[in-house]
Amino acid sequence: ALYHTEERGQPCSQNYRLFFKNVTGHYISPFHDIPLKVNSKEENGIPMKKARNDEYENLFNMIVEIPRWTNAKMEIATKEPMNPIKQYVKDGKLRYVANIFPYKGYIWNYGTLPQTWEDPHEKDKSTNCFGDNDPIDVCEIGSKILSCGEVIHVKILGILALIDEGETDWKLIAINANDPEASKFHDIDDVKKFKPGYLEATLNWFRLYKVPDGKPENQFAFNGEFKNKAFALEVIKSTHQCWKALLMKKCNGGAINCTNVQISDSPFRCTQEEARSLVESVSSSPNKESNEEEQVWHFLGK
Amino acid sequence: ALYHTEERGQPCSQNYRLFFKNVTGHYISPFHDIPLKVNSKEENGIPMKKARNDEYENLFNMIVEIPRWTNAKMEIATKEPMNPIKQYVKDGKLRYVANIFPYKGYIWNYGTLPQTWEDPHEKDKSTNCFGDNDPIDVCEIGSKILSCGEVIHVKILGILALIDEGETDWKLIAINANDPEASKFHDIDDVKKFKPGYLEATLNWFRLYKVPDGKPENQFAFNGEFKNKAFALEVIKSTHQCWKALLMKKCNGGAINCTNVQISDSPFRCTQEEARSLVESVSSSPNKESNEEEQVWHFLGK
Repeated sequence: ALYHTEERGQPCSQNYRLFFKNVTGHYISPFHDIPLKVNSKEENGIPMKKARNDEYENLFNMIVEIPRWTNAKMEIATKEPMNPIKQYVKDGKLRYVANIFPYKGYIWNYGTLPQTWEDPHEKDKSTNCFGDNDPIDVCEIGSKILSCGEVIHVKILGILALIDEGETDWKLIAINANDPEASKFHDIDDVKKFKPGYLEATLNWFRLYKVPDGKPENQFAFNGEFKNKAFALEVIKSTHQCWKALLMKKCNGGAINCTNVQISDSPFRCTQEEARSLVESVSSSPNKESNEEEQVWHFLGK
Repeated sequence: ALYHTEERGQPCSQNYRLFFKNVTGHYISPFHDIPLKVNSKEENGIPMKKARNDEYENLFNMIVEIPRWTNAKMEIATKEPMNPIKQYVKDGKLRYVANIFPYKGYIWNYGTLPQTWEDPHEKDKSTNCFGDNDPIDVCEIGSKILSCGEVIHVKILGILALIDEGETDWKLIAINANDPEASKFHDIDDVKKFKPGYLEATLNWFRLYKVPDGKPENQFAFNGEFKNKAFALEVIKSTHQCWKALLMKKCNGGAINCTNVQISDSPFRCTQEEARSLVESVSSSPNKESNEEEQVWHFLGK
């Protein structure tokens, strides 16, 4: 693998962090230093034929945060140096997604595309809402359960425009390029065809998943319609531009930590040694919590 | 706890066995030696008042075989001495239930009532089908995930008449008497009221769960209608009578192993020492298998 991870702190605790390293063993930021696109120019140093090159046009790196059927809200810590993955904490408590009957935990492998950012100061032109200040989210619909911290290649198939408390929160639909059925999936209609009910379940899941926390149902732009691959690729392009502006300090990144080791011209670039000392300054005392929300099923039907 | 368990062999292997012991540490058969009903006559030696006694009329022991949201088909080995729990093996392979989209594994804690038997030589008078040669199955709908081998008290709420390849396979609907919401559940209608969609999901699950194995959809008696508590209690009574006849050698038990340590008058009763030597004669060499079926989701929608 091109990337591997290093655990620090106690799993299932508030101080747990999963840091990323590149193939030479140096720390990187998964948010900033993993390329958005799979390198299409050459493979093992050999330039590719045109046909293969076209295939690569739709291949993106995805960072897996949450394995299918699990509940812990693992996410890239956008505001911490080197952006490790950690579990979301609110009001001093580790957070878990509720089980919305009939589903168990997250119903896809869930994660993000690196080098993307939904700018909270920019109104999305199609949703008319500001961004949610995070990299763009991905629902990976392949058959294999992936692991937290895996970096995989995905084919983009479509996108859903969730409006979460007034913020745009795009949800890409994608499939693992290594899935045994990946060659059958080209666009959003193939999901309807080969995984019947999955898009309806996805919409329903996102509509309801915060209701057990006392929040209202989520809303969607486009009346909850899933947009196709071409539309999704435009959204990715736009969030990639926002990320570029962020890293070049051409917009207000607020508390986002932009430290990186590989982005030439970025004023936030640091050396490998600086990256290592940033990682090693993170403390790690154990602090295990139990979690009831993983067990309970919420019956929200009428 | 009144009962505890002892693991033998390697978990997730074909030689894994979970044996049961009583409070004095002697081996018992969970199938035959755990009473069907929770002792209603006295509690800690003190006779109870009438009201509490009535409450106990609907309390049964349940042996948990399969925790909610898991896939391994753990079951009481009815044909082995002392009837430990083991994983079902077919054609030399450990068996797992398929994940029927949108469900994950078994959607309840699943198990059986002790001292019951669905006689394969007797036609059930309401389904007109023979029994499936097993103790009666229970779907426990409480919020807590239970463990394989736990013995809990359940309140019976209703019953579904599954017809599996021509055999009657009753599925009781029950709730853990210790569930925080147990006092709200008295009969089958309370499931519809407080867990909307659960009975529909249960019917759908049982209809489809063998389809990924290449089998036809299961059928139901009564057009798939769930019968109420009173009906369920009659079915339990009848399967308990069949079990009694089995243990008293008054009917043909075929390959069922009736060895027990506590049933007076049963010709299959053995001593504690004999039970122990039966358990210790079971070999236990490790043999781990991997399992793909736990990961894959089957999309059976049209």
